[in-house]
Amino acid sequence: METSDETTAPAEPAAAAPTGIAAQDWARASEDPQYRAAVVDLLGALAYGELAAFERLAEDAKLAPTLEDKAELAKMASAEFHHFERLRDRLADIDAAPTEAMAPFAAALDEFHRQTAPSDWLEGLVKAYVGDSIASDFYREVAVRLDSDTRDLVLQVLDDTGHASFAVEKVRAAIEAEPRVGGRLALWARRLMGEALSQAQRVVADRDALSTMLVGGVADGFDLAEVGRMFSRITEAHTKRMAALGLAA
Amino acid sequence: METSDETTAPAEPAAAAPTGIAAQDWARASEDPQYRAAVVDLLGALAYGELAAFERLAEDAKLAPTLEDKAELAKMASAEFHHFERLRDRLADIDAAPTEAMAPFAAALDEFHRQTAPSDWLEGLVKAYVGDSIASDFYREVAVRLDSDTRDLVLQVLDDTGHASFAVEKVRAAIEAEPRVGGRLALWARRLMGEALSQAQRVVADRDALSTMLVGGVADGFDLAEVGRMFSRITEAHTKRMAALGLAA
Repeated sequence: METSDETTAPAEPAAAAPTGIAAQDWARASEDPQYRAAVVDLLGALAYGELAAFERLAEDAKLAPTLEDKAELAKMASAEFHHFERLRDRLADIDAAPTEAMAPFAAALDEFHRQTAPSDWLEGLVKAYVGDSIASDFYREVAVRLDSDTRDLVLQVLDDTGHASFAVEKVRAAIEAEPRVGGRLALWARRLMGEALSQAQRVVADRDALSTMLVGGVADGFDLAEVGRMFSRITEAHTKRMAALGLAA
Repeated sequence: METSDETTAPAEPAAAAPTGIAAQDWARASEDPQYRAAVVDLLGALAYGELAAFERLAEDAKLAPTLEDKAELAKMASAEFHHFERLRDRLADIDAAPTEAMAPFAAALDEFHRQTAPSDWLEGLVKAYVGDSIASDFYREVAVRLDSDTRDLVLQVLDDTGHASFAVEKVRAAIEAEPRVGGRLALWARRLMGEALSQAQRVVADRDALSTMLVGGVADGFDLAEVGRMFSRITEAHTKRMAALGLAA
């Protein structure tokens, strides 16, 4: 799985041909114990995130105004659960105990959900949309720096589960019908972003292997400045999505 | 799909060769508008039941003492959701509006779940086990009297989703560890059975097409005495299951 086309990386990471770890498969990349630990962390965080998302969506389904809406949320919840299964199975395949891998991330994710329990159906939809989009942006940024096997799995479980178009359509219709709703939901989206960042910081501070990978010690092309740029890109994408939704971010 | 082997039915319905409607497929059986209405009712009740079971299990997953237990409940919830999807799709295939078909059963099922919200993990497990077993017994009894296509679907969605062995194992272990728990859970199981019967009565009283089928007007071999025997069989099976669980029913 090694390649010799180690061209100088262009400024935009997405355009770069895979080099270093990104050009290796798991068997080779995992020979480095630090890289291995970082991937176990990443998969554990993602697995717990999917399980928590399942719970959150199932809970939010209760707020649904119609049976069709309820079924739609239940479908998303079920999709998140299947993603969880794949990640858990992958952890088991690489001889990592899934529960142990997930445990370090439970507190931060549970706290995020506790701090951001939606008070109605629309808040729930905005949360599903914002939360998923941010998580998905983040994992996609990280994915390009992973070994090919882990990258494929991460990209597959981030495949759109239909949240986006469903939530956007419902939220836009609600704002059109009652423009004042937009102000309330904009504040809500800002609070979600704030909580997400503060919990992400907590995780990074706690998990050495994961943060070492993020700031360039293990995987390729990531340094502290690059992490800063990544957070800017994620924040910008969030702002654009909020605008598309009819909300000032 | 007509057969000519109309042998005299033996006493045990399970041993009878299919006759009448049970020997027909949906295309033929549904020519009778009363039978058609009864099946739409049955599928609607079953679909809403699966959706409600999804919600209940997802909710109970929060009470799970460990991450593995949580994942196990989430898995069951997801399986119930996929059953719901099949029933909803079947309703749509036979040109019945799924939401309309489900709506008449929402109140009774919601009320059942409201009246029997488990207060801890073990109560949740007993409820999942008892509720599923009773529902499954009931639908299996009805299934043998349905046209072949509807029967196949009903039997497929009643396939064990793994509730039984998981719940039995956990509840027995808890009673062994702390025998007093058994008394509390036995009371709980009795309350569940009482609520289930009282909501079932409400449904039967409200839904003409469904109850006409049950008491013999439409499908084969069911009269009021047979319905009584069916309820006895279901109650007996419940008592046996409770005994196997270490609970006096």
